[in-house]
Amino acid sequence: MRALALLLLLASAQVDARARDLGVPFEGKPGPLNAITDIAGVEVGQVTLIKGEGPLTVGKGPIRSGVTVIFPRGRNNLKPVYGGYFNLNGNGEMTGLAYLQDFGVISGPIGITSTNAVGHVYAGIQEWAVRHTGEVVYPVVAETWDGWQSDIDGFHVRPETAAIALDAAKSGPVDEGVVGGGTGMHCFSFKGGIGTSSRAISAGGKPYTVGVLVQCNTGDRKVLRIAGVPVGQEFTNSWLPCYDPKQSRPDQLPKCGKGGKALPDQGSIIIVVGTDAPLMPLQLQRVAKRAALGLARLGSYSGTSSGDIILAFSTKPEAVNAPDQKLPSPITPLADTEVNAVFEATVQATEEAIVNALSAAHTSTGADGYTMFGLPHDELRSILKRYNRLEGAAK
Amino acid sequence: MRALALLLLLASAQVDARARDLGVPFEGKPGPLNAITDIAGVEVGQVTLIKGEGPLTVGKGPIRSGVTVIFPRGRNNLKPVYGGYFNLNGNGEMTGLAYLQDFGVISGPIGITSTNAVGHVYAGIQEWAVRHTGEVVYPVVAETWDGWQSDIDGFHVRPETAAIALDAAKSGPVDEGVVGGGTGMHCFSFKGGIGTSSRAISAGGKPYTVGVLVQCNTGDRKVLRIAGVPVGQEFTNSWLPCYDPKQSRPDQLPKCGKGGKALPDQGSIIIVVGTDAPLMPLQLQRVAKRAALGLARLGSYSGTSSGDIILAFSTKPEAVNAPDQKLPSPITPLADTEVNAVFEATVQATEEAIVNALSAAHTSTGADGYTMFGLPHDELRSILKRYNRLEGAAK
Amino acid sequence: MRALALLLLLASAQVDARARDLGVPFEGKPGPLNAITDIAGVEVGQVTLIKGEGPLTVGKGPIRSGVTVIFPRGRNNLKPVYGGYFNLNGNGEMTGLAYLQDFGVISGPIGITSTNAVGHVYAGIQEWAVRHTGEVVYPVVAETWDGWQSDIDGFHVRPETAAIALDAAKSGPVDEGVVGGGTGMHCFSFKGGIGTSSRAISAGGKPYTVGVLVQCNTGDRKVLRIAGVPVGQEFTNSWLPCYDPKQSRPDQLPKCGKGGKALPDQGSIIIVVGTDAPLMPLQLQRVAKRAALGLARLGSYSGTSSGDIILAFSTKPEAVNAPDQKLPSPITPLADTEVNAVFEATVQATEEAIVNALSAAHTSTGADGYTMFGLPHDELRSILKRYNRLEGAAK
Amino acid sequence: MRALALLLLLASAQVDARARDLGVPFEGKPGPLNAITDIAGVEVGQVTLIKGEGPLTVGKGPIRSGVTVIFPRGRNNLKPVYGGYFNLNGNGEMTGLAYLQDFGVISGPIGITSTNAVGHVYAGIQEWAVRHTGEVVYPVVAETWDGWQSDIDGFHVRPETAAIALDAAKSGPVDEGVVGGGTGMHCFSFKGGIGTSSRAISAGGKPYTVGVLVQCNTGDRKVLRIAGVPVGQEFTNSWLPCYDPKQSRPDQLPKCGKGGKALPDQGSIIIVVGTDAPLMPLQLQRVAKRAALGLARLGSYSGTSSGDIILAFSTKPEAVNAPDQKLPSPITPLADTEVNAVFEATVQATEEAIVNALSAAHTSTGADGYTMFGLPHDELRSILKRYNRLEGAAK
Repeated sequence: MRALALLLLLASAQVDARARDLGVPFEGKPGPLNAITDIAGVEVGQVTLIKGEGPLTVGKGPIRSGVTVIFPRGRNNLKPVYGGYFNLNGNGEMTGLAYLQDFGVISGPIGITSTNAVGHVYAGIQEWAVRHTGEVVYPVVAETWDGWQSDIDGFHVRPETAAIALDAAKSGPVDEGVVGGGTGMHCFSFKGGIGTSSRAISAGGKPYTVGVLVQCNTGDRKVLRIAGVPVGQEFTNSWLPCYDPKQSRPDQLPKCGKGGKALPDQGSIIIVVGTDAPLMPLQLQRVAKRAALGLARLGSYSGTSSGDIILAFSTKPEAVNAPDQKLPSPITPLADTEVNAVFEATVQATEEAIVNALSAAHTSTGADGYTMFGLPHDELRSILKRYNRLEGAAK
Repeated sequence: MRALALLLLLASAQVDARARDLGVPFEGKPGPLNAITDIAGVEVGQVTLIKGEGPLTVGKGPIRSGVTVIFPRGRNNLKPVYGGYFNLNGNGEMTGLAYLQDFGVISGPIGITSTNAVGHVYAGIQEWAVRHTGEVVYPVVAETWDGWQSDIDGFHVRPETAAIALDAAKSGPVDEGVVGGGTGMHCFSFKGGIGTSSRAISAGGKPYTVGVLVQCNTGDRKVLRIAGVPVGQEFTNSWLPCYDPKQSRPDQLPKCGKGGKALPDQGSIIIVVGTDAPLMPLQLQRVAKRAALGLARLGSYSGTSSGDIILAFSTKPEAVNAPDQKLPSPITPLADTEVNAVFEATVQATEEAIVNALSAAHTSTGADGYTMFGLPHDELRSILKRYNRLEGAAK
Repeated sequence: MRALALLLLLASAQVDARARDLGVPFEGKPGPLNAITDIAGVEVGQVTLIKGEGPLTVGKGPIRSGVTVIFPRGRNNLKPVYGGYFNLNGNGEMTGLAYLQDFGVISGPIGITSTNAVGHVYAGIQEWAVRHTGEVVYPVVAETWDGWQSDIDGFHVRPETAAIALDAAKSGPVDEGVVGGGTGMHCFSFKGGIGTSSRAISAGGKPYTVGVLVQCNTGDRKVLRIAGVPVGQEFTNSWLPCYDPKQSRPDQLPKCGKGGKALPDQGSIIIVVGTDAPLMPLQLQRVAKRAALGLARLGSYSGTSSGDIILAFSTKPEAVNAPDQKLPSPITPLADTEVNAVFEATVQATEEAIVNALSAAHTSTGADGYTMFGLPHDELRSILKRYNRLEGAAK
Repeated sequence: MRALALLLLLASAQVDARARDLGVPFEGKPGPLNAITDIAGVEVGQVTLIKGEGPLTVGKGPIRSGVTVIFPRGRNNLKPVYGGYFNLNGNGEMTGLAYLQDFGVISGPIGITSTNAVGHVYAGIQEWAVRHTGEVVYPVVAETWDGWQSDIDGFHVRPETAAIALDAAKSGPVDEGVVGGGTGMHCFSFKGGIGTSSRAISAGGKPYTVGVLVQCNTGDRKVLRIAGVPVGQEFTNSWLPCYDPKQSRPDQLPKCGKGGKALPDQGSIIIVVGTDAPLMPLQLQRVAKRAALGLARLGSYSGTSSGDIILAFSTKPEAVNAPDQKLPSPITPLADTEVNAVFEATVQATEEAIVNALSAAHTSTGADGYTMFGLPHDELRSILKRYNRLEGAAK
């Protein structure tokens, strides 16, 4: 098996920083892990494929790819959840949308991966679901394009790769940065990947959690704002992606050492929002739209080449009105007068999850020596300080 | 007051026939009245404006217009209901759609009228709601175009006209044919207007009602099917609309007595589906789509000039999760495994409501002597018999 | 290779009948082949997997499955086309919807297959596209469920199976019935599968073609109408699916010889509409909605368990405004005043394509001896005659 | 005539500031007027109704209301334009949506007004259009709620008020702040109203203009960001709306002098985006979504009580494919690879238009002495300076 022959790295804990540890200020109160797994039941599994270096040979590598999966109710409970989506910019794939539109239901685990891995991850989830539950599922599989650093046309992510991610799913901290489906990604022309965040809220007198996980592979450097500070303008011509001058072919510009080149606002971002607040499908569609407002805080205009697709789900109620649900499924949805707390948390956690992806992703080199640089932490702090936005600094 | 100066006809009971009394076969079991008012609480009010004869003078008449209103919970209960819509062909107006899309809620009574009366009926409903409840509502007001027979550019329907319809709303039998908003309408180039029907169903072991009300002003004669029989092909060149040869201006063709002319598939149909089965907004969107399947049984291809817009609502639960609803609003929606009964009833009742509109609408003459003919009952029966589809006839 | 080890049947020409040869009356004028391939450039490829008999053993068989692919511009031209979709009932999968919603573009070939084959066919199309064009595509892959007759949990359709269908694509006649993606399907509880039809129309003074291809696996027997005739009521208790009494396990009811049992209105229908009339994406969304009106002529109420999803595309203009299209792409869309011809043709060809699927599909037996019966041609003719709807018969 | 009996103020030029004159930094290059009227042909008309002071008496006043209208092609050219909308939060009304969804066309002028004026403005536009062109239009009329300061239940805006705004439409500078439909509005608990901005861009080698006009009546004070600076946190407890202690009734809290009270994130914002870049309807839907990203830069989470609805239109091509357009309407849409310039300009101009509304709106008092304070310019400058974001200041 080709996939198994790879150096499979079940993502180990990142030592890279989280945004608020760097002093980036955020609004709202995070949950204990500041991760989507703060929602009771949610489990995340990731497989990171990093193999090879040097020139690209299709079918051989180098490989910088992977799979991230999310189980809304955990690996041992494939009962469907209510969900909704928002298609901010549809230059990408998220499967399962017909079902979401008409029923507001997500069946089975959610997969996030590389563009050319959608089919294989879809098959992997279907096969896994049949093995584990005997149920047919319409998986939600979404993608961003990792062809800058990875042998994307080599189709190294296989159904079996997805199965490994599914089997590895767990609660607890979530690895961020260069891991899972985010392994080969960029974010505002820095190294990007997976990021997560959460908020502990109160709505209608009860405590709830809102969590977000992003796979960031998008963003126009010059517009980047962090905590409202025009960071992109400060970094316009520095830390730009570049090719190893020794490895790159003549048409591969620019070469490292001679300045890099910002990527266009393309590549896509997938955002998954979860909550344990009981919400009806239409309410979840509305939550999904709020994640776009969180992305906008980063300065994004959602470029035409970017597949910016957002999914929202709720783990409550425990039984939903899916087409094959035979018993009535009562729901007492959060009153709309109380839903603002969920909206505000979604905006905040999305903003933070993206900055977390940027903060955690370290400088990485892939095919043809193509290097994306990690957001330089010290420089970021120095810029935030200059704009009076460094948390913990004297103002 | 101009509107009050008109000959206001609060629609009196029609003596015209209903489709099943003519022997048209339908599937399913209707409610006691075979009308949308079979749903407990639903009230319908209609104002019919018929005034003047002869040549059209803008601002004077002749007038063949009116207003039909539907209160999902009755005139004395303006609490919102869950709703959904389907835009089969959007060449028309139905207000309140942003609210329906995002919240799945209808606030206030529903109005159906003439194209140029939308603003005035909208204002009339808002003013009436403020007077009666102090509440802001986003009324759902829909329209079809009655300019063939009525002085539509005279704007004879006023806010006060709507108020009269609202005050007249009641449960019980619903007048059909040349009444209310349907006064000036055609249907497959026969005289058209208002039609209604209902079905008594069982779903999940409980009895429910599905009711439909249509304002039919659409349809291409040649494709008309009744009970599946190609009636339009039999009537291709007969009973076509025509102008009084004495009244018509030279450019008004064709003249009566020299053959009429079929109208194109334009003009629009508004379909309102109600039920007391408890359904969430997404489920009601799905119900709305089924009414299009009922229209299709008439042979319609939903022509590009036709505003074919469908609204669905449920009277259950009694309190819905509207933006200003402060208390939680529990719902136990009908399980999706049971919703087929609602779908099938919607298709059946829509089909029958349209044939009821055709059956009840008698031959009528309007501006410039423009005459639309009522569906000839005896000929219809004879055709149905020929195709072995006349109910009660020996087969 | 497992898929290659199967008895691969590149679908050979069916001898089964087409609906109009049986005397079923239809409206409109078909193209030369009365098939979607009447549209210049359109090519269809099919792989039929029929292997094994007797009891079901997951992973072994019996297999009754396959893949049908459609190239809008032919196998040698993967340039994108404008497209639109309509989600009549979203209990199913059609991938590529985010791209269709936001850009109105279809990239790459369209695949139709079994539910559990979506991932593998998706991967197969992506791999094929990379091999042939180097392009990333977001394939549109749709499905219906063939688990009644086939070992669906055995995942016998593989990426390689899709590749064979893609390589086999051609213009010319299209096999119907028990072929390709339709191999294991039912249709109104008769044997179903693939059907196609076309219409030659004139719009704006120019000739165009509208073609439809369906994979029918849906339908409630009792409501079936053919040519408007209530055929389903005549066949309520005959020709119902049943299990071989010798093979079936105790819980498999009903047994053949003791009466069969109608399937519920579940299983799904995929409808693909193509045309060479130049249409903008919003216009194609509107065309897609008309195919639902064609399905409705069969009596369907689009049951909740049925994934009834419709795709429409146009082969004109030859270059569309896709995200990676660098040159301006002018279009002179068909004027909306002329689009009715396309709508009417879509309704007619959808109706006929479904009846063609029914007419072509012969009695077939699958896993556990489960038999679905072909629509009995002589009985159908006799019923149509009784309702004065048999084409060619004295009326 | 009641409306005419009012003190009708055809909005005179505001002396209030524009945001960039205050030193607020923005990205991109505005057009000559930095207004939506920088788009050739676009004309704006406004009527401001300010009458009375003191306690509210329904039907008498005080009145703080009005109407703003936009003609995409100017007052003398009612030919339709392509358009699209985005329903960010649908707790509001925008009429004409069925037509926009299905045809992507806007017919007639666009009206923005008070919630309870929607019907009357709709009627006023229809009547005006019939008088001037004889055409039926489905007007796009949108609203926000001015009941805090105005006798909204007195229905003082009449069809005739709309006619005055329509007749007053002109190119040139656009009054901002407390004018037109924006007269009675708030914005992040400051006084709000009308704001506009534009961007001059280059796309595909050609110059285009993007213009935005907003009616701001929304926003949660505490989250307000201006130029990325957390201005709302600095103003959390100052300049909050309050009632005149002498006028207010016991239940009207809070009283001025004892601290005011922030309004919840409710009340709505209407955003209209125009351009002369040739765009197809689907592209305009995408442009509309970008305006939400501009709003998000202000910190908004789009509260559940806010009707945040966005309209986008293009003045090119000059003839569009509307349902009654008989001649073919060619379009060479801006290539999607070039559309980012429009997206970025939309985000920028939306952000600036809202800050312009805030900057131009002066402190105003309405019914019951309810006062909303204008954004204090000097304090704003001082805050921006503290965060190193004051344009023109030493950094």
